[in-house]
Amino acid sequence: MNEFSLIRNYFTTSSFERKDVIIGVGDDGAVTMTPPGQYLVTTTDTLLEGVHFLPETSAKAIAHKAVAVNLSDLAAMGAEPAWINLSLSIPKVDEAWLREFSSEISRLTEYFSVQLIGGDTVKGKTAVTITAQGFVPPESILTRKGAKAGDWLFVTGTLGDAAAGLALIQKKLTVKSPEFSEYLINRHYFPTPRVLAGTTLRRIASACIDVSDGLLQDLEHIVAGSEVGALVHLDKLPISEALGNSIQGLEHALSYACSGGDDYELLFTVPEEQRVSMEAAMASYNLPCTCIGQITGAQGKIDLRLNDEPFSFAETKGYQHF
Amino acid sequence: MNEFSLIRNYFTTSSFERKDVIIGVGDDGAVTMTPPGQYLVTTTDTLLEGVHFLPETSAKAIAHKAVAVNLSDLAAMGAEPAWINLSLSIPKVDEAWLREFSSEISRLTEYFSVQLIGGDTVKGKTAVTITAQGFVPPESILTRKGAKAGDWLFVTGTLGDAAAGLALIQKKLTVKSPEFSEYLINRHYFPTPRVLAGTTLRRIASACIDVSDGLLQDLEHIVAGSEVGALVHLDKLPISEALGNSIQGLEHALSYACSGGDDYELLFTVPEEQRVSMEAAMASYNLPCTCIGQITGAQGKIDLRLNDEPFSFAETKGYQHF
Repeated sequence: MNEFSLIRNYFTTSSFERKDVIIGVGDDGAVTMTPPGQYLVTTTDTLLEGVHFLPETSAKAIAHKAVAVNLSDLAAMGAEPAWINLSLSIPKVDEAWLREFSSEISRLTEYFSVQLIGGDTVKGKTAVTITAQGFVPPESILTRKGAKAGDWLFVTGTLGDAAAGLALIQKKLTVKSPEFSEYLINRHYFPTPRVLAGTTLRRIASACIDVSDGLLQDLEHIVAGSEVGALVHLDKLPISEALGNSIQGLEHALSYACSGGDDYELLFTVPEEQRVSMEAAMASYNLPCTCIGQITGAQGKIDLRLNDEPFSFAETKGYQHF
Repeated sequence: MNEFSLIRNYFTTSSFERKDVIIGVGDDGAVTMTPPGQYLVTTTDTLLEGVHFLPETSAKAIAHKAVAVNLSDLAAMGAEPAWINLSLSIPKVDEAWLREFSSEISRLTEYFSVQLIGGDTVKGKTAVTITAQGFVPPESILTRKGAKAGDWLFVTGTLGDAAAGLALIQKKLTVKSPEFSEYLINRHYFPTPRVLAGTTLRRIASACIDVSDGLLQDLEHIVAGSEVGALVHLDKLPISEALGNSIQGLEHALSYACSGGDDYELLFTVPEEQRVSMEAAMASYNLPCTCIGQITGAQGKIDLRLNDEPFSFAETKGYQHF
């Protein structure tokens, strides 16, 4: 089977179709229409075997994560996702693998009303690069730069689950309850991009980022981008029942929540005067969010507190690629 | 050095800056503006060490080719390039390599007035995925689908040079003249995307594709997409002085021209009534193009002639990835 029939067989017909796609897969480029007056948001993320996923990861989980991490970046900008391009590197044509992979791409793109508009397949170690595109009205963009001293610091969902899931898979952690174990492992393999939270936070959040490298590392980007500081109340961090019941010792659980990557929750700041309407808007969509601290004027400084006492970890950094 | 300072140091400040980029490198996604009334064209290509370039290829040549192949795809759609996203996989942080790579990205993007708006860096075998975006007015898109029986078949520049350059590097070919050798090797390492030819062919060409996998394989895409056939006069194929003087035997030279990939010339069809104005438009920009045959009604059939006699090669297919 050659490259062309490979692409045709698995990635042409199964995807969700949008009206704003003039030409999808099958020509030298895809041709699409951006809605008048809206900005285009583009993001690219590569997942590489052995770096971003374990070699034993299923085709379904690889496909899911590749789409999810990119949609999560769009969500963090307040954008509505529209189209994705897929570059897939695989060592050989394994039809069962490709069927599973493409079926998860289809399922997830359909769920988010996103169309796969193009891509490339090459022979090599398993790797997936997705470029996702979406729209946002000019006045609604969320960035890392708008946080002001006094703004409240919020995070969606719960933190540390994906890292605990990875530790379980790697047998660095054991959990008595198989239900908790399954929950945490699923949070690692199948993260949910907070697309609806991102668009809900338009014109409300003053800054926003997705938690991909760990809470504290991603908070540093807001702190640096907005030229502010932050106070984080560790005792307020949202910890899932599964994580809370699986980890011995508070500091250990907090280290997962602060430094574990891959949760793909949104970390955002909200001015005092928007806080009530933000909480109402999020609640109306059943989107969980928790206030974990406040932005301060102490430029570049992240102040950790546990029950109002200063606190520091031995190791708090997120994942370093090099 | 961590991933963030790596990106910052080499890919933030050096790129060409466009007024339609609201947010470039440095947030979760890039934010840009598509000109009102124009379509967005997006294309993705991955270059992988050992598949798309030899391990000894310089950082400069890898960067050049990664940008060029993507801009070539935009050119084949008649699009004007605007922005690129770069996903770079490298085994280690080699500052000299990164300086050379990023400096060629800067040079080429500046030349084509394109801005690098985002990307990702990961640790792995050397690989580059670029997603390029550009614009085209709705009535001006070039696709593989519009060729009609009777249309003339044209190609820009010369064919087979890049494949001969590769054969020279791999010592599968020897050339007496060092000047010819250098020319062919440069055509392999530093292809020129036909951006100006692509926009010049808007509303003139009935179908267009770039020659990346070899003339005959890419012609098959036009033939299949347009549901037509084609007649190719092999004696009309544009062969450079360097290639013509370097290859022993006519059939050998023709096989480079027909099956050699990576030339990134444009292969296009023009209705009889547009032929004169097309040739005048191309000549006014000093863009070389040659009529190599004609579209026929013989669906799916590519008819090769040499001095008006039927001709066939032993092996004419382009590169197969799998």
